[in-house]
Amino acid sequence: TVNGDRLWQSLMDLAEIGAYDDERTGLRGVNRLALTDADAAGRRRVVAWMKEAGLAVRIDQMGNIYGRREGTDPTAAPVLTGSHIDSVATAGAFDGCLGVLGGIEVVRTLNERGITTRRPIEVGIFTEEEGVRFGTDMLGSAVAAGRLTPEYAHALTDRDGHTLGGELIRTGFAGPTDVRLAPPHAYVECHIEQGPVLAENDVPVGVVTGVQGISWQEITIHGRAAHAGTTPTHLRADAGLAAAQIIVHLRSLVDSGAYGDLRATVGHLIVHPDLTNIVPARAEMTVDLRNPDDAQMARAEEALAAFLRDLENSRPGLSLTTRRMAKTAYVPFDDSVQKVIAQAADDHALEHISLLSGAGHDAQEIAALCPTAMIFVRGEYDGISHNPREYSTPEACAHGVDVLATALLRLADQ
Amino acid sequence: TVNGDRLWQSLMDLAEIGAYDDERTGLRGVNRLALTDADAAGRRRVVAWMKEAGLAVRIDQMGNIYGRREGTDPTAAPVLTGSHIDSVATAGAFDGCLGVLGGIEVVRTLNERGITTRRPIEVGIFTEEEGVRFGTDMLGSAVAAGRLTPEYAHALTDRDGHTLGGELIRTGFAGPTDVRLAPPHAYVECHIEQGPVLAENDVPVGVVTGVQGISWQEITIHGRAAHAGTTPTHLRADAGLAAAQIIVHLRSLVDSGAYGDLRATVGHLIVHPDLTNIVPARAEMTVDLRNPDDAQMARAEEALAAFLRDLENSRPGLSLTTRRMAKTAYVPFDDSVQKVIAQAADDHALEHISLLSGAGHDAQEIAALCPTAMIFVRGEYDGISHNPREYSTPEACAHGVDVLATALLRLADQ
Ligand SMILES: NC(=O)NCCC(=O)O
Ligand SMILES: NC(=O)NCCC(=O)O
Repeated sequence: TVNGDRLWQSLMDLAEIGAYDDERTGLRGVNRLALTDADAAGRRRVVAWMKEAGLAVRIDQMGNIYGRREGTDPTAAPVLTGSHIDSVATAGAFDGCLGVLGGIEVVRTLNERGITTRRPIEVGIFTEEEGVRFGTDMLGSAVAAGRLTPEYAHALTDRDGHTLGGELIRTGFAGPTDVRLAPPHAYVECHIEQGPVLAENDVPVGVVTGVQGISWQEITIHGRAAHAGTTPTHLRADAGLAAAQIIVHLRSLVDSGAYGDLRATVGHLIVHPDLTNIVPARAEMTVDLRNPDDAQMARAEEALAAFLRDLENSRPGLSLTTRRMAKTAYVPFDDSVQKVIAQAADDHALEHISLLSGAGHDAQEIAALCPTAMIFVRGEYDGISHNPREYSTPEACAHGVDVLATALLRLADQ
Repeated sequence: TVNGDRLWQSLMDLAEIGAYDDERTGLRGVNRLALTDADAAGRRRVVAWMKEAGLAVRIDQMGNIYGRREGTDPTAAPVLTGSHIDSVATAGAFDGCLGVLGGIEVVRTLNERGITTRRPIEVGIFTEEEGVRFGTDMLGSAVAAGRLTPEYAHALTDRDGHTLGGELIRTGFAGPTDVRLAPPHAYVECHIEQGPVLAENDVPVGVVTGVQGISWQEITIHGRAAHAGTTPTHLRADAGLAAAQIIVHLRSLVDSGAYGDLRATVGHLIVHPDLTNIVPARAEMTVDLRNPDDAQMARAEEALAAFLRDLENSRPGLSLTTRRMAKTAYVPFDDSVQKVIAQAADDHALEHISLLSGAGHDAQEIAALCPTAMIFVRGEYDGISHNPREYSTPEACAHGVDVLATALLRLADQ
């Protein structure tokens, strides 16, 4: 078993980088958007910990960081673990960080025990997993796995027009290593569940069977600015109203039950000029759809597209455009790696269940390169995440990383 | 008749202060929010024109500016005209400016003709008529008329936390004159219609019978930030969805026809943290209701309040608060002043109709102090306003100010 106190201490230390106090709730949150100064400071801290643990650190052209512990067979493909340390703007201490710091904690434990493995073990930190700064999630791992090109990724811009490429250079994390990752032997990622299933089933860890499909798009609505007092309702082309109708319609698609286990979220919404007595001329919004079934996802996307067409035709002066931000299909994880994880949990006498991931993870990208699966750690408060209230107990975190250590050891000696 | 070319030139000159180029439409708009640097520059320009026209200028504690042309009877109450030069962020050249520059053009014409009047004539410029920077419209005139206190007004803040009082001092327009205006003999304001009625009736000018009621409130919705991928729909408290439901419901109140001639606009809407994969924790929006019938307005406000209560109760974790920003009842204008205006239009052989104002105007506040009415000037493109497309022809503007001149002369000799 790993050193749970040391793991916890590193989680709490990292959470101070980019920390903020939430006035309303009194909670302390984390805001470490990818490639901001806070993220760069977090990266420097974690790289220092990697080096202290004896890892050889390399940084690739996407700013993905890998720390390597050599095995006895230098020609053998490494076993990879890791996750991300970028966060959303209203995050907690655990999302991503548990996987990265858990990987480092495994290495520290192996070092203390003098354990050598046949295969090298590598700990990865992937860039912009959250996708909230540059608009595409699992970005660093998707480029490492070859699904997206570095050119596409480097040209992505944030809301202020900064490019990802420019921010990599600015923060000093534009590394020299080729971003295309040579296939590892296997990949295992430990992550908080970010949902209620483990708590509902009262088990500490989960074996993740796969990740549901994710569809992100941005919708821009052009209407016509007009005076709120004088413009008759029939002459309006209200971009804000159209946005609201889309949001309400999306919920009705979910509630209809006709699209399987669909989830729909409009997280980003702005109107312009955003003034009390002006009918909005323009609205911009994102639509985040999730579905474990690719066919149902396609049907839901078609239903949304049909609604957008009808909306555009319903009122002269309204026009809508959509832009694809991110799209991933349902990704099933490897059976044999799931078995290794389940066996590791059994070895630690930890109850476990199998479950599908609701969130996207770097593991789903690396799964294209090698046998992959994930370990989920139980969260409190319905598993709330992307919120300062996000919390997993020190015991739950240590249990997850114990399972990770045992699974990595087993895979590294294959 | 006044000098229409000179009037037009001053409108175009003033429109360059705070001008911007609208990329999408290729139009040139005006952004001169109250007490910004642009508004201060506009004020300085117009004060210079007032002084060139021989007006004695005074500035009150709300930054309202009055230019006075003496009459032959120094003890007689003045006839007041005027309007505002602050604008919304996406404005045209005419809203408010026509009334102020029209008043100055009348004075120039009287000077050129050597015409003296019994009563003084004053031209007023009122602060923050639009209400979009500090949240309450017709603010300067409402304080001048005693409906609101200067303490209330000075403490209002913009979105960046600047107080109106501080901005008055910063821009140099915190004047020494007592803001409470001594009752004028009469008030006449010339303004663009900002709506389609005059154009539909193919007449150049309108005699305004009154202003419909205005109700502004801000609604803040607190929900719970949560992960878009992992949070089951039934566990969500989505502040953005609630905002959308309010917007859609408001339109259904309008479309029901059950609240008379109700108009409803949500012009301001923000969500927080405003990120793709986070269920909005908070939303803030404004509701602008208009109704020519105070009883129908009250019913519409009650219907909205009931909907907000139901919404709050519909989902655990949602809470809603409302804040009153502005509220004015239906204001009828004075019959005798309307007759003077109609007679003046007849004198100039201009066809006219009577109509109600859809927009709020300083005249509705000054109406509490003295007999008041307004002259409306026809606009093109359905009378679109609060939009760079806002346009009235040089002829239409000159016609309106001709009527203003004749009406002011008649009232000043009463
Ligand atoms: N784990 C996680 O929060 N990933 C971000 C991508 C997503 O929205 O699912
Ligand atoms: N005339 C005008 O645009 N007034 C602003 C106040 C309102 O929204 O009606």
